[in-house]
Amino acid sequence: VLAARERIAGHAHRTPIHRSRALDERAGAEVLLKCENFQRVGAFKFRGAYNAISKLGPAERAAGIVAFSSGNHAQGVALAARLHGLRATIVMPTTAPAAKRDATAGYGAEIVPYDPRSADREEVARGIARERPGAAVIPPYDHPDVIAGQGTAALELIEESGGLDALLAPCGGGGLLSGSAIATKHLLPRCRVIGVEPELADDATRSFRSKTLQTVHNPPTIADGTRTPSLGKLTFPLVLSLVDDMVTVSEEAIIAAVRFLFERTKMVVEPSGALGVAALLTGAVRPSGRVGVILSGGNVDGSTFAAIVGG
Amino acid sequence: VLAARERIAGHAHRTPIHRSRALDERAGAEVLLKCENFQRVGAFKFRGAYNAISKLGPAERAAGIVAFSSGNHAQGVALAARLHGLRATIVMPTTAPAAKRDATAGYGAEIVPYDPRSADREEVARGIARERPGAAVIPPYDHPDVIAGQGTAALELIEESGGLDALLAPCGGGGLLSGSAIATKHLLPRCRVIGVEPELADDATRSFRSKTLQTVHNPPTIADGTRTPSLGKLTFPLVLSLVDDMVTVSEEAIIAAVRFLFERTKMVVEPSGALGVAALLTGAVRPSGRVGVILSGGNVDGSTFAAIVGG
Repeated sequence: VLAARERIAGHAHRTPIHRSRALDERAGAEVLLKCENFQRVGAFKFRGAYNAISKLGPAERAAGIVAFSSGNHAQGVALAARLHGLRATIVMPTTAPAAKRDATAGYGAEIVPYDPRSADREEVARGIARERPGAAVIPPYDHPDVIAGQGTAALELIEESGGLDALLAPCGGGGLLSGSAIATKHLLPRCRVIGVEPELADDATRSFRSKTLQTVHNPPTIADGTRTPSLGKLTFPLVLSLVDDMVTVSEEAIIAAVRFLFERTKMVVEPSGALGVAALLTGAVRPSGRVGVILSGGNVDGSTFAAIVGG
Repeated sequence: VLAARERIAGHAHRTPIHRSRALDERAGAEVLLKCENFQRVGAFKFRGAYNAISKLGPAERAAGIVAFSSGNHAQGVALAARLHGLRATIVMPTTAPAAKRDATAGYGAEIVPYDPRSADREEVARGIARERPGAAVIPPYDHPDVIAGQGTAALELIEESGGLDALLAPCGGGGLLSGSAIATKHLLPRCRVIGVEPELADDATRSFRSKTLQTVHNPPTIADGTRTPSLGKLTFPLVLSLVDDMVTVSEEAIIAAVRFLFERTKMVVEPSGALGVAALLTGAVRPSGRVGVILSGGNVDGSTFAAIVGG
């Protein structure tokens, strides 16, 4: 994570920390919001993508990048590849939010759509990579350089916080959560690290409790960043060993958290990004002292955001 | 303005400056966004209200504060009064956005509603003050301490900017614009100061051009912060002498600017707050070099915001 921080310095934003008196009152704690919605491409995913691409060798660079993602990782890889002057091909589900698909194309990546009901995105991506000898597949979470890059957000938050008693991060495939846990346990061994999932996509919570990898299949949660089928080969053991607890929140709680952040902090946060705040507002997590929350992204379609804040 | 800065230090936020590559490209300039949507009460108005209330004497403090406002000044006075331990009574139009009315009540102020079609808000406020000997009326813009407080946002922006070639500020009653102009012309005499109004509420632009005070009556602009009838006795001569130009933008341009800020900067900015960005996106202002834009506030009803970003 420390090496990743050096690699992304000057390329990724060092995002601000925002505070909200209203949130402190509701949570009964001092809450520090790490605003990855203000990160480049609108989400933390740029950190891991840029870090992983920085480490590629000449042959891989020449062959280009292949990635699969429902949205934010796609944008992160597309922009990071462009900044490195590399070709990027992104396998995206036909169900991805239009804002994320359009932005990915806007960064110059080639998009290969697939139907998530009938095809496996990783197989589609690896098939493309096989046709381009040397092409590097940058997966959305299960890769050491991606995990290390994602951990830099927590690193920055802890350094600026003056100490944290707990850290909340959303959990999809576990890249952000495990990277955050690595950074946190290194710097603040006593700080509790808590992952937050939608009830409808609770595979990681069930995996954490049962210590056996559990899966979900296209869960219909509004938090599209957490629709990943399961934790990965790397992220599952990291979550098991470094994360202190996992909690889940309802769809209603996620929507209420996005609306709260709109009304009280004037920030646009996507549903996946609001999971930590949802856990605080519902009391799923009752912290004391100072708690960090990673707002993981802000990429939400206008129509979805309108339905949330206009309701 | 410098004295006001000392008075509000530690009470008002020193708000951040945000950048957007997409906006730089569209504007053809380096654009610095001063984020008063992240100010306390969600708008710059807290600065002037806090500064003015700080200067009251014991008799005025004992009698309490009376103010009139369509929204953000109401919230600013309500919170500043509460922080000083003073009673506040706010005269608000029945047409004020619900978010602004509810927040004002939430800060503990007593709200006196009036119908803007049949009553004059200033007369209502002065009537209340007459019944409470010593009560201070804190007007929304036409007051030296209010103007000085509002100027602190531009002061901070200029200090952190490393120099500006132009500064854009929205104009309702001219408190923010004239305070910004005072600060700017003191620190950067060559920096152009430009006020931005909705076409539908262009009284200040017409006043500026004709050098005679012009008025509007309840203009139906979505930018509710600029529905003031005219510049004031203090702000009109300040605008005439210190502001370099005034421009107007259409309702469509204001809506497009709010949507742009939502999509590309992940910030919630109210229609009045987006006037400067609207002027850049439409080409009403074509700056070169480095331009500062004051995003004056973020207090917008969920239903209004939904109509803008969901459309």
